[in-house]
Amino acid sequence: MRVGIIGLGLMGGSLGLSLKHIKFVSKVCGFDHNLSHCEEALKLGLVDDIVSFSEIKKCDMIFLAIPVEAIIDVLQNLIDIPKETTIVDLGSTKEKIIDSAPKDIRKNFIPAHPMTGTEKFGPSAAIEDLYHDSVVVLCNMDKSGDNHKNRAIQVFSHIGMKIVFMDAKEHDKHASFISHLPHALSYALANSVMGEEEPKSILLLAGGGFKDMSRIAKSSPLMWTDIFKQNRKNILSSIELFENELGKCKKIIEEEDWEELENWMGNATTLHKIL
Amino acid sequence: MRVGIIGLGLMGGSLGLSLKHIKFVSKVCGFDHNLSHCEEALKLGLVDDIVSFSEIKKCDMIFLAIPVEAIIDVLQNLIDIPKETTIVDLGSTKEKIIDSAPKDIRKNFIPAHPMTGTEKFGPSAAIEDLYHDSVVVLCNMDKSGDNHKNRAIQVFSHIGMKIVFMDAKEHDKHASFISHLPHALSYALANSVMGEEEPKSILLLAGGGFKDMSRIAKSSPLMWTDIFKQNRKNILSSIELFENELGKCKKIIEEEDWEELENWMGNATTLHKIL
Repeated sequence: MRVGIIGLGLMGGSLGLSLKHIKFVSKVCGFDHNLSHCEEALKLGLVDDIVSFSEIKKCDMIFLAIPVEAIIDVLQNLIDIPKETTIVDLGSTKEKIIDSAPKDIRKNFIPAHPMTGTEKFGPSAAIEDLYHDSVVVLCNMDKSGDNHKNRAIQVFSHIGMKIVFMDAKEHDKHASFISHLPHALSYALANSVMGEEEPKSILLLAGGGFKDMSRIAKSSPLMWTDIFKQNRKNILSSIELFENELGKCKKIIEEEDWEELENWMGNATTLHKIL
Repeated sequence: MRVGIIGLGLMGGSLGLSLKHIKFVSKVCGFDHNLSHCEEALKLGLVDDIVSFSEIKKCDMIFLAIPVEAIIDVLQNLIDIPKETTIVDLGSTKEKIIDSAPKDIRKNFIPAHPMTGTEKFGPSAAIEDLYHDSVVVLCNMDKSGDNHKNRAIQVFSHIGMKIVFMDAKEHDKHASFISHLPHALSYALANSVMGEEEPKSILLLAGGGFKDMSRIAKSSPLMWTDIFKQNRKNILSSIELFENELGKCKKIIEEEDWEELENWMGNATTLHKIL
């Protein structure tokens, strides 16, 4: 089986590295509109070959590892693929992408969201075990053809992923909490510190807690703006829920109700019993 | 030199492990009001010996590795130590603790805040390299005796720490941003998810970003309530600044000004140029 990867950054590049170990994958072809990404991906051995967009279309399986708005655009240009070709997107939002998938290739299409990543981007950010042991959410699979479904499940499980099936609406709601809201908070925390008079003397004191909380504020603004655009409503409501929760904390501190503060913190620690 | 550690949890226990490698430390004595902590610390080899409170007072140097409210209490019971004895606290707040230090032992007292830790607590959480390569802030040292100051600097540098001098007021303000606010946010994020109908199915999707952002929400509520109590004003204003920043993000999303969102995120990424 020949696999094509469109987008050779962190996600696509790491996928290339993982696919190399799968026996039923004979070749991994790459495409990226950024030529220096293509050169870098080839040099780093992320893919076997760099091919044109029309060549990528001839692969048995095509992964879209590009920003979510670009996924929608590219899907429109894949309308003429053979009915045996499987298309998998790796976008962080699912409903808008699924809605945009042309009817003619909806059966070919597997909407997927691997719950993994780092704050880094570009081909040099690719790492071999990015997908290993992480969850991949597959959405609205009842509209995908069985052969395509099986092929995607086979590949994801062979690169060590744990498969979860979910409705796209539910996915987008959950993802706003588990991934998109944390990014908004991390960016807001970074901006709060950067807005102070002497960010350098504040950051001198940064320990592990702050470093963890601000790590994902390094993520690509371009990529995340697209995600916020596509999952706007869910993100707005998760921000509101968070604001209520932080408001509770603030009110308790204002009222100096320390017993209640300990309860509020105690409730938060229960998260780790199920995480 | 004999060193005494009051409080044998994560901070005190890890300090014991570090002190063992220092040539000029002949013995590390431990004290904890929790008897099972004493037994555990001895079993894990965190200290050489468990002694009584009156025995700890005979050590050349005493570290207070206990919650910040308890530090204030214990300081009052150290008023009768010899003038050669150095007392160092490791509390996350500094101004209230310094204000509470009895006049008679103010010269003996070194107010310190090691900017390190993990979300775990108790003797079993102790790790050998907790202090290595981290910053320790020493506050209002002009009121500490030179011999005590030198002794503390010597010990902290020998366990691999980077020393920073700072005014207590400034420390408390900076610490509220870099450490206390991130804890409030992490607890609030955890509570936001736990307040949803199906936290389990949300958490199924948790990737590295969420895990990082919620890690410190596992921290001891007892310990953190005390910190919030002592640094109330600074924490309230840092929460307010954060609320404004998150409010900005929300407004931009509501107005669908995606160019502005990318700028806002882009500004946040500049933090990592100085972190």
